[in-house]
Amino acid sequence: MNLARVAQILGITESRLQGLQETIIRESAWPEPRLIRFEKEASGVEAGTVVFENGDIVFGYPKIRRPLFLAPAIERHFSGAVAVEEKMNGHNVRVLSVSGETVALTRGGFICPYSTEVARRLVPEEIFEKNPNLVLCGEMVGPENPYVAKEVYPTDSIDFYLFDVAEKNRKGTAGVHKTHELAEQFGLKATAFLGQFQKDIAAEKIRHIVLRLGRQGREGVVLKDPENQVSPIKYTSSATNCSDIAVGFKYYNDYATDFFLSRVVREGFQSVEWNESEEERGERAQRIGESILFSMIETIEKKRAGENIVQRVIIHVRNLQTARDFEYHLRRSGIRALFDPPMPDDEGYQIGITKLVMSTNDKTQALLDGEMW
Amino acid sequence: MNLARVAQILGITESRLQGLQETIIRESAWPEPRLIRFEKEASGVEAGTVVFENGDIVFGYPKIRRPLFLAPAIERHFSGAVAVEEKMNGHNVRVLSVSGETVALTRGGFICPYSTEVARRLVPEEIFEKNPNLVLCGEMVGPENPYVAKEVYPTDSIDFYLFDVAEKNRKGTAGVHKTHELAEQFGLKATAFLGQFQKDIAAEKIRHIVLRLGRQGREGVVLKDPENQVSPIKYTSSATNCSDIAVGFKYYNDYATDFFLSRVVREGFQSVEWNESEEERGERAQRIGESILFSMIETIEKKRAGENIVQRVIIHVRNLQTARDFEYHLRRSGIRALFDPPMPDDEGYQIGITKLVMSTNDKTQALLDGEMW
Repeated sequence: MNLARVAQILGITESRLQGLQETIIRESAWPEPRLIRFEKEASGVEAGTVVFENGDIVFGYPKIRRPLFLAPAIERHFSGAVAVEEKMNGHNVRVLSVSGETVALTRGGFICPYSTEVARRLVPEEIFEKNPNLVLCGEMVGPENPYVAKEVYPTDSIDFYLFDVAEKNRKGTAGVHKTHELAEQFGLKATAFLGQFQKDIAAEKIRHIVLRLGRQGREGVVLKDPENQVSPIKYTSSATNCSDIAVGFKYYNDYATDFFLSRVVREGFQSVEWNESEEERGERAQRIGESILFSMIETIEKKRAGENIVQRVIIHVRNLQTARDFEYHLRRSGIRALFDPPMPDDEGYQIGITKLVMSTNDKTQALLDGEMW
Repeated sequence: MNLARVAQILGITESRLQGLQETIIRESAWPEPRLIRFEKEASGVEAGTVVFENGDIVFGYPKIRRPLFLAPAIERHFSGAVAVEEKMNGHNVRVLSVSGETVALTRGGFICPYSTEVARRLVPEEIFEKNPNLVLCGEMVGPENPYVAKEVYPTDSIDFYLFDVAEKNRKGTAGVHKTHELAEQFGLKATAFLGQFQKDIAAEKIRHIVLRLGRQGREGVVLKDPENQVSPIKYTSSATNCSDIAVGFKYYNDYATDFFLSRVVREGFQSVEWNESEEERGERAQRIGESILFSMIETIEKKRAGENIVQRVIIHVRNLQTARDFEYHLRRSGIRALFDPPMPDDEGYQIGITKLVMSTNDKTQALLDGEMW
């Protein structure tokens, strides 16, 4: 690859780029096309940034930060109006065309074979014929999302929702309005635009939006500057905080602590900022307590009944090779999963996937046997 | 010090002892008498083991392990009967006489000036005149315990409860029955003996005991082999798990994650082992949720009202020097605390202590100001 050019586009020196190659830059030769990826952020280059062998560069999607106390955060962060979009709960992909082929990049900068097949099914090639440098930043959601399976969205399989657009070889994204224009123009689904408010009233409006989304089991909102001058921020519903906690404690020895603290602290600040009544706080406490205890009890009783503690998801693929490739992709991503034999159906194959959560499985058995914690 | 003799008593080689001196053995020249302490366990020598300059050796008190599923643990661990004692919630000290002076050692092997003054007040010197090698292992509890202040015990200041006895220069402890005999003989308080049961019925008996203790806000039980052939194990009430969680979340950015997971997992296993009804589980969930949320909310609202997030405790000392020494001891133990000016009272001085929890204090302020998590 042409180091000088790549360094210049990334906005770092050539020698720095060379230095990073021994440390945080990783090569990925599979699936085609070959690429190098930034495993971590470095010198202002986002994690997940990718350089393809043909020279195309795709910047990583910037991490969206989260305030816990919304009103003052909006006051500090935004200058005028605040655009509100739904934050969807799936996995973040960047879809683009490289040397004439559509690919889907994961957050970390891998080509995900399954996401790629889904993208090829859902994103008309015409988009990239007309805009060869376009990078579609979106969320893949639905019950057939093998990373985060959710039933709450209007799909019984998996769907793609655009939430931003970028360009190859250029930092930054196009922002709310251009994103929705483009989605409309090419008939793509986009994350719901929930309104635009002056910042002094935004927090109160958003509280009602988040409460409504929570009742629907949806995740929350992303707040964007309509002029795209400052970075977006995110804010989530109690329902999603608690359902994440429930997942964490269902697999308490694998995931619980990872994200537990931040989520309960969100609950505390939300309750204070919203000046909840004693009763509302009692309900919130009940919700938190149940998401912790009930999911953990389910796991312990399951194990006591002799079942294994696993995560199940079912996906559909058009092409058997996609399933084989995806199995390999999960393995390289450090996810232990067993794939059932494919079952042919009208449009391809249905495949059950069992994700193993060994630590919780083994620990629960040991504790049930009377071992010490 | 006579390395050969010390090594021989500790049960390690002289060269190993020399090696440890550069790594995990620390010297403590203050307060008198000088000593060396094992900061961590090494070669089978318990953490907190102390060698005084006069050659006296005091072994660290062994860590007591905890099962989460009680019945099978008892079945595996014990041979015949199980003796049940109350586990008290304070700080663990070893009281002994060195060169004619009574001192109290913390778990880590420091001489604690405050605990030492309390021990000198509560433990008759006669005990050590009659048994110069005696080491009294006990719990200091009460509202004036500056480490763990608890109101639930029958003292309005601080008291000492014996739970085991050991001897200088000898590993191991004497066990339940000798401990209670000695306490009786010298009029010392001992942790309550709650019965002795055959192991097949012990778990059920203990369930009732733990439920009763929980209703009284007490911590739980330590299970011991009456013959002192196997190590003790411990088991705690839901009430104490939740009150610990509440403290953790009151200072969520300083303590929460440290011990959160283990405590909620205990709740899950206890609920399953006790085959609780839906209703009982709902109440347990509420209890857990409230201990998390309400204490956190209290902190956030306190901070929003402009108060600092601190821990307050009041102690009484006979001697002003004890207070000055204790202030230094807390600092060397890594605890940041401010001491009020002493207020003379009938038996000495009352001193208010403010323990600072900076991380929670600062983090809460920042989040209230709208900073991101």
